[in-house]
Amino acid sequence: MHGVAGQSISTTAAEIRRPQVVILGAGFGGLEAALNLRKADADVTIIDRRNYHLFQPLLYQVATAALSPGDIASPIRWVLRRQQNVEVLLADVRSIDPIGRTVAVDSGALTIPYDYLVLAPGAAHAYFGHPEWEPRAPGLKTLDDALEMRRRVLLAFEAAERETDPDRQRRLLTFVIVGGGPTGVELAGALAEIARQSLVKDFRRIRPESARIVLLEGSPHVLGTFPDPLRGAARRALERLGVEVRTDSIVVGIDEDCVTYRHGDAQERISAATILWGAGVAASPIAKSLGVPLDRVGRVTPEPTLALAQYPNIFIVGDLCAFVQDGKPLPGVAQVAMQQGTRAGSNILRAIAGQGLEPFRYRDYGIMATIGRGSAVGDVFGLKISGFFAWLFWIFLHIFWLIGFRNRLVVMSEWAWAYFSLQRRVRLITGLRGAATTDAAPPPARR
Amino acid sequence: MHGVAGQSISTTAAEIRRPQVVILGAGFGGLEAALNLRKADADVTIIDRRNYHLFQPLLYQVATAALSPGDIASPIRWVLRRQQNVEVLLADVRSIDPIGRTVAVDSGALTIPYDYLVLAPGAAHAYFGHPEWEPRAPGLKTLDDALEMRRRVLLAFEAAERETDPDRQRRLLTFVIVGGGPTGVELAGALAEIARQSLVKDFRRIRPESARIVLLEGSPHVLGTFPDPLRGAARRALERLGVEVRTDSIVVGIDEDCVTYRHGDAQERISAATILWGAGVAASPIAKSLGVPLDRVGRVTPEPTLALAQYPNIFIVGDLCAFVQDGKPLPGVAQVAMQQGTRAGSNILRAIAGQGLEPFRYRDYGIMATIGRGSAVGDVFGLKISGFFAWLFWIFLHIFWLIGFRNRLVVMSEWAWAYFSLQRRVRLITGLRGAATTDAAPPPARR
Repeated sequence: MHGVAGQSISTTAAEIRRPQVVILGAGFGGLEAALNLRKADADVTIIDRRNYHLFQPLLYQVATAALSPGDIASPIRWVLRRQQNVEVLLADVRSIDPIGRTVAVDSGALTIPYDYLVLAPGAAHAYFGHPEWEPRAPGLKTLDDALEMRRRVLLAFEAAERETDPDRQRRLLTFVIVGGGPTGVELAGALAEIARQSLVKDFRRIRPESARIVLLEGSPHVLGTFPDPLRGAARRALERLGVEVRTDSIVVGIDEDCVTYRHGDAQERISAATILWGAGVAASPIAKSLGVPLDRVGRVTPEPTLALAQYPNIFIVGDLCAFVQDGKPLPGVAQVAMQQGTRAGSNILRAIAGQGLEPFRYRDYGIMATIGRGSAVGDVFGLKISGFFAWLFWIFLHIFWLIGFRNRLVVMSEWAWAYFSLQRRVRLITGLRGAATTDAAPPPARR
Repeated sequence: MHGVAGQSISTTAAEIRRPQVVILGAGFGGLEAALNLRKADADVTIIDRRNYHLFQPLLYQVATAALSPGDIASPIRWVLRRQQNVEVLLADVRSIDPIGRTVAVDSGALTIPYDYLVLAPGAAHAYFGHPEWEPRAPGLKTLDDALEMRRRVLLAFEAAERETDPDRQRRLLTFVIVGGGPTGVELAGALAEIARQSLVKDFRRIRPESARIVLLEGSPHVLGTFPDPLRGAARRALERLGVEVRTDSIVVGIDEDCVTYRHGDAQERISAATILWGAGVAASPIAKSLGVPLDRVGRVTPEPTLALAQYPNIFIVGDLCAFVQDGKPLPGVAQVAMQQGTRAGSNILRAIAGQGLEPFRYRDYGIMATIGRGSAVGDVFGLKISGFFAWLFWIFLHIFWLIGFRNRLVVMSEWAWAYFSLQRRVRLITGLRGAATTDAAPPPARR
C-alpha cells in the first residue's frame, strides 16, 4: 500500500500471473497435495462433493457402531483453514477439458480454469459387472455408506427379535461379507464381536451370539496382499471369533433371498438378510473425459513424475493412478495416495519455479489389519507381527495419523472405553422413515 | 426346580397370571416408568419407533454441530439391558383398543395385549394449521431432525461462498428461527456462535460473521415461561451475540423465498434461505384412538393419579398429559415427564399389589436455558441466576442427567474442547445425494 509505485505495479502484475491450481478430491492424496502447496505463490482450489475429509481406514468402525462419524472425519475447510492460498469448493465434478484447461462442475454450467490439475478423485465400489447387486450389498466408501451398513446390521437384529418363524429368524441372523481384503476382514471381525459380545444382554428372544457371519473370498487367501504367515494368522483370528471363512468362493449371484457362490465345481447358496460388500473397487469415471488410455479398472497410467505424458500439467494421484514400481502395481491404500499427493504438490512447485519434475517413488512402511478387539496382523518395517501387540501398535499408528489432535484424544478414549466395557455406544439407527421394519411376524404372546 | 411340589405349582400359576405392562414411548417419561417397574412381578414391553433414548434438551447441540448423535442418545436396549422383565420392541404404534386392551403396531396386523398401559408418546411439531410450512421450516424432535438442520445450516454457508449475486448471498446468509421458547433461544444463540466464531476462518469469499440471525416470537417475551428478570437477561444475551430478537411477531406465511410475519398492524417480510422451527408442539395423534376428550392441542387430561377416569389401567405421561397443578398447566419439559413416569410406574406397582393409587405432584427444581458459549439463564430452587456461572451450572446439571456414565465423560470433554477452541468439530454434512447445491451461481474468476 505504502510502497513505491514500481513495487506496487510489480505486485499487481505478479497477482495477475498467479498460477491456478485445481485439486479434485480431498481424500488423502488431494489433501496432501494441497498441504504441500501451502507456500506456493499460486491460487489453489480443492473441489470435493463432500464437505469432510474422511479417515477411511477406520470407516468400518463407524459401520459397526464403535465410532461416531465425527470421530473419523474433519471438515475440509477446517483442515485447511489456516492456508490462505486455498479455497474449498463443495461441488460435483462432471468433466475435464484438458485442452481448454478447465473442469466443469455440477450441472456443467460452472467451469473452473486451471494451470495445474491434480486428479485425486478416489475410487467407487465395483460389482464385477453386476451393478444390480449394489442395493442388496452396499459397499463402504463414505460416512453415509457406513451409517447405512450400521442401520442394516442393527435392524436385522431387531427384526430377528420379532420373528417367530425359525427359518426366517435364521436368515435375519446371517450376515455375509463379500471380499476378504482388509475392509472385509475388519468388517467380519467387528461384526462377530458385536454379535458375541456387545449385544449379548440386549435381546430377550434371540441369542445374538448365535448369529452366523460368513466371509466370502474369491482367491485362495484372505488378505491376499499380505505376506503368507499373516494371511494364516488373520484366518485363524477370524475363525476364533466364529467367522466362517470361505476362500476360493466366487460370488455369482445376489438376490432378495440369498447369495450364490461358486466353490470349485459346486454352486452353493446362503440365505442371508444382510450382505455387505467389501470387494472390488473401480476408479472414478471422471478420468474418461481426459481422452487418455485407461486400464481394465478405469485407471490412468502417468509418467514416473505422476504427470500425464499428453498433458504435463495434469497429475494423477491415489486410487485413480496405475503405478508400477519394481514390477509390481502399487496397492490402493492411504499411504500410497498420501505420498503421491506430496510428490504431485512438490512437482507443481517445481514446475511453477521452472524446474524439472522429479519421479515418484513409494516407500512402503508396512500394512496392517485388525481382527476384532485386541488382535491384528501386520507387516511393518519388514517385521511381521500379529496378536495383541500388533493391535496396540495398529491403534497408535492410526490415532497418530488422524488429522486433528482433538480427534486423536476422543478416538483414543472411545476405544479404551469400548475395549474395557465391550460396549459400542453409538448403536443408533438414524435415517428410519416411518415404520421400523415390517417383514417380521408378530412376536409370540407371552402369557 | 428343586423345591417341593406345592411351591413349584404356585410359581407356575403366578407366572401364568403375570400382568402385562405395555409402555408406549421410550422418552424421559416412558423410560422412567420402565425403570420404576424393575422389581415388578410383571412382563413389561416398551415400544418405540426408534431404537434410542434421546436426551432432547441437548438436541440443539447436535443441530448446531457441537455434539455427535452418539453423545446424546443411548440405545434403549442398552439402557434396559439388565432389567430382565423388560422387552424392547422397535415398532410404530398405530392405534389403541382400550376395551379389548390391545395396541396395534406397524401395519396393524400385530396386536399386543396389555393389563396396564403407559402412554408416553411425546409430541410432534405443530405448524399452527399450516402443515405446508414443515418442509421449508423443519423442527427439532429427533436425531434425524437435528442432522437435517445441521445439513441445511452448513449448506447455506457453502452456497453463499459460491454465490456472486449480493442479494442472493444475503438471503443465503440469513437464518430465521421461529419461536422464542427454550429451543428457539438455544438454537439462535448457537447459530450466532457458529457464524461469529467457529466458521470465521473457514471461508474465503464470505464473512460468516456477517450472517443475519433473526428470532421471531409471537408473544411479548422470549422464554415466556421463565420469570421476568430472566426473560430480559436472555434477550440481552442474544442481542450481545448479534441475534435480532423480534417479539410480538406472528408468522403468517412461509414460502420458498421468505418468511412473512405480522408485527402490530404491519406485515413484514424477511428473505431467508434457512428457516428453523422452534415453535409449537402438538400431542401425538395416537390419543385419538382412545375415544376420550382431547384438549385444543390434542392432549389427554387424566385423573390426579395419571390414570384415565374411563380406563383406570391406562396412565398418561409427559407431553401427551394435560395436567393442571395449583391452577397452572405443567410445561412440556423433561422433568415433568420423568416425574410422571416415576408416578405411573409406582401406581402400576400399587395396582398390581391391590393398593389404591396415589396422586401425582410435580416438584419444580427449576428451569434453565443456555445462550451460546458461556451464558445461561435459570430459575433453580427459587434462585434466579444468569451469566457464566448459570452456564457452568447448566452444564453440570445436564451432564449429571445424561444417561450412561460414559456419555457424561465424553460430552464433558467435547464441551471443554469446544469452549476453549471455539471449534465445532462435527461440522459434517451427511445425507448429501449427488450434487451438493445447485442454486448458486458460479464463483467469480480470480485472475
